[in-house]
Amino acid sequence: MHIAITGAAGFLGQRLVQQLIAKGELRQQAITRLTLIDQVEAPQPDPGNIAVNSIALDITAPGALDSVLAQRPDVIYHLAAVVSSAAEADLDLGMRVNFDATRALLEGCREQALTHTRLIMASSVAAYGGELPEVLDDMTALHPQNSYGAQKAMCELLINDYSRRGLVDGLVLRLPTIVIRPGRPNAAASSFASSILREPLNGDEAVCPVPVELPMFVMSPGKVVDALIHGAEVPSEALGPFRAFMLPGITVTVAEMLEALREAAGEKALARVRHEPDPRIEAIVASWPAQFATAKAQRLGFVGDDNFKQIIDAFIAEST
Amino acid sequence: MHIAITGAAGFLGQRLVQQLIAKGELRQQAITRLTLIDQVEAPQPDPGNIAVNSIALDITAPGALDSVLAQRPDVIYHLAAVVSSAAEADLDLGMRVNFDATRALLEGCREQALTHTRLIMASSVAAYGGELPEVLDDMTALHPQNSYGAQKAMCELLINDYSRRGLVDGLVLRLPTIVIRPGRPNAAASSFASSILREPLNGDEAVCPVPVELPMFVMSPGKVVDALIHGAEVPSEALGPFRAFMLPGITVTVAEMLEALREAAGEKALARVRHEPDPRIEAIVASWPAQFATAKAQRLGFVGDDNFKQIIDAFIAEST
Repeated sequence: MHIAITGAAGFLGQRLVQQLIAKGELRQQAITRLTLIDQVEAPQPDPGNIAVNSIALDITAPGALDSVLAQRPDVIYHLAAVVSSAAEADLDLGMRVNFDATRALLEGCREQALTHTRLIMASSVAAYGGELPEVLDDMTALHPQNSYGAQKAMCELLINDYSRRGLVDGLVLRLPTIVIRPGRPNAAASSFASSILREPLNGDEAVCPVPVELPMFVMSPGKVVDALIHGAEVPSEALGPFRAFMLPGITVTVAEMLEALREAAGEKALARVRHEPDPRIEAIVASWPAQFATAKAQRLGFVGDDNFKQIIDAFIAEST
Repeated sequence: MHIAITGAAGFLGQRLVQQLIAKGELRQQAITRLTLIDQVEAPQPDPGNIAVNSIALDITAPGALDSVLAQRPDVIYHLAAVVSSAAEADLDLGMRVNFDATRALLEGCREQALTHTRLIMASSVAAYGGELPEVLDDMTALHPQNSYGAQKAMCELLINDYSRRGLVDGLVLRLPTIVIRPGRPNAAASSFASSILREPLNGDEAVCPVPVELPMFVMSPGKVVDALIHGAEVPSEALGPFRAFMLPGITVTVAEMLEALREAAGEKALARVRHEPDPRIEAIVASWPAQFATAKAQRLGFVGDDNFKQIIDAFIAEST
């Protein structure tokens, strides 16, 4: 079992690598080889008996992935992407990385006749937008209101078509907002959702820029990685006529997230959250849908978090 | 008012040209110039006072449309496409013509800063597919089950994103199956739907490759051209957050189409239709949905046919 991962140096890629190594097998076959691809060489945890190859390359360069695909990986995780704010700031960059590189990856699979290779791409809640119903489901149209979402939605169509034609065995998982991310706050509009929990738990101050009534659709990093792994194991014939769907996140308001923080770490932790409304961030986050019926993912055996307390507890357990 | 049309030598392009010339104005401005683009030089009807330039070019060639776009057309109809069966037979050709050429056209508009140019692309019922509800609406997801539909759906996302960014004033009209097309049968999977009416009305034999119970969502050529013209006149601010939607076709079974043929031209005409099932065509056409609630198009003032008899009567009137 040879697994290749683009974006392997990223937060999600790194967690996936760790978990694959810990698991040691996929589809009941021993993992013998991991190929980690990113712009910089991805850090390698102790791989045990697994041959790990970490390659620094630009996936937008012509033929960049040819040598990897020639090794006929059984599973490819395509996590490399330009994030939403960067794709919005630079249309060409977003098209090149988020769309063209995905198309080149599909073409590479086609050239190598990797018809049985499971190609798993991460898509996003950002692919939804516009005049949405209160509760979205697997048949809700993608009317993205940002270039990142548009590019991901185009990739979904392409991966589905290549899979339908039998050129590759594709799957696209739309990720909810991931909470709690490790690290520091960043420019992403969703950054606060991790920050208002992570910083107080670490004894630091954080800013909440949105009204606490705001609902969000979230999933813990652990459950997202579980879903990526499960995505490699779902049989092709179960995927049905469209191979992209939303993962089973949970809907929580910011108030519920803060109440879970108080329960886990007390009033003192809660007091570290300053409320400073930022209408710009509120406008972006409020445009993301927060309620989904994720029937397809659940039917296929994808599992979300039970409640927000579990998400906080997992973060605390992982941090200590 | 300068109007450019790709695919201008095609059946729809030719009808559009005729109607634009007859109308003489668009958006209450006199049409002064028409640029007709196709692989072959498009025939020009008597243009009256309008300057008509017919150009034969390959829209997939780099910079093919540069000189046209440099003349800053006010409205662009992008009708050029590889039809569904051809796109299914040749993925590369379909991607090149249906997707890459559309992307190049958008990029050309961006380079020329044609921010106020209304770019109207024809999309298709073939963009829908998969596990569909009985009645589709404006929020039904596009899960295309053919490469043509996937390519059109990708173009929709791109045109919407370029429009949202203010790079062009785009609009995508999803066309129902057009019935009755003039001329001869072609490679389109839907070709039979016109052929089983047109040929018998002309005294010729025709082949029906699908079961007569099959429902289809259809629109007459006249109403489609009316919609293309109306599409140039709908104000941008009325288009809302997603600029692609289905036109108001009508739902009829093949049996109802044949019954209308019998009513219009008698048993002798009906007897000219031979039933020879073709599972390949049935598979494609049966994957196209047949019932739509087209609220958005109707709210924007697009008008469909009243019934199938009207469609047959219009064809007979136009043929004589």
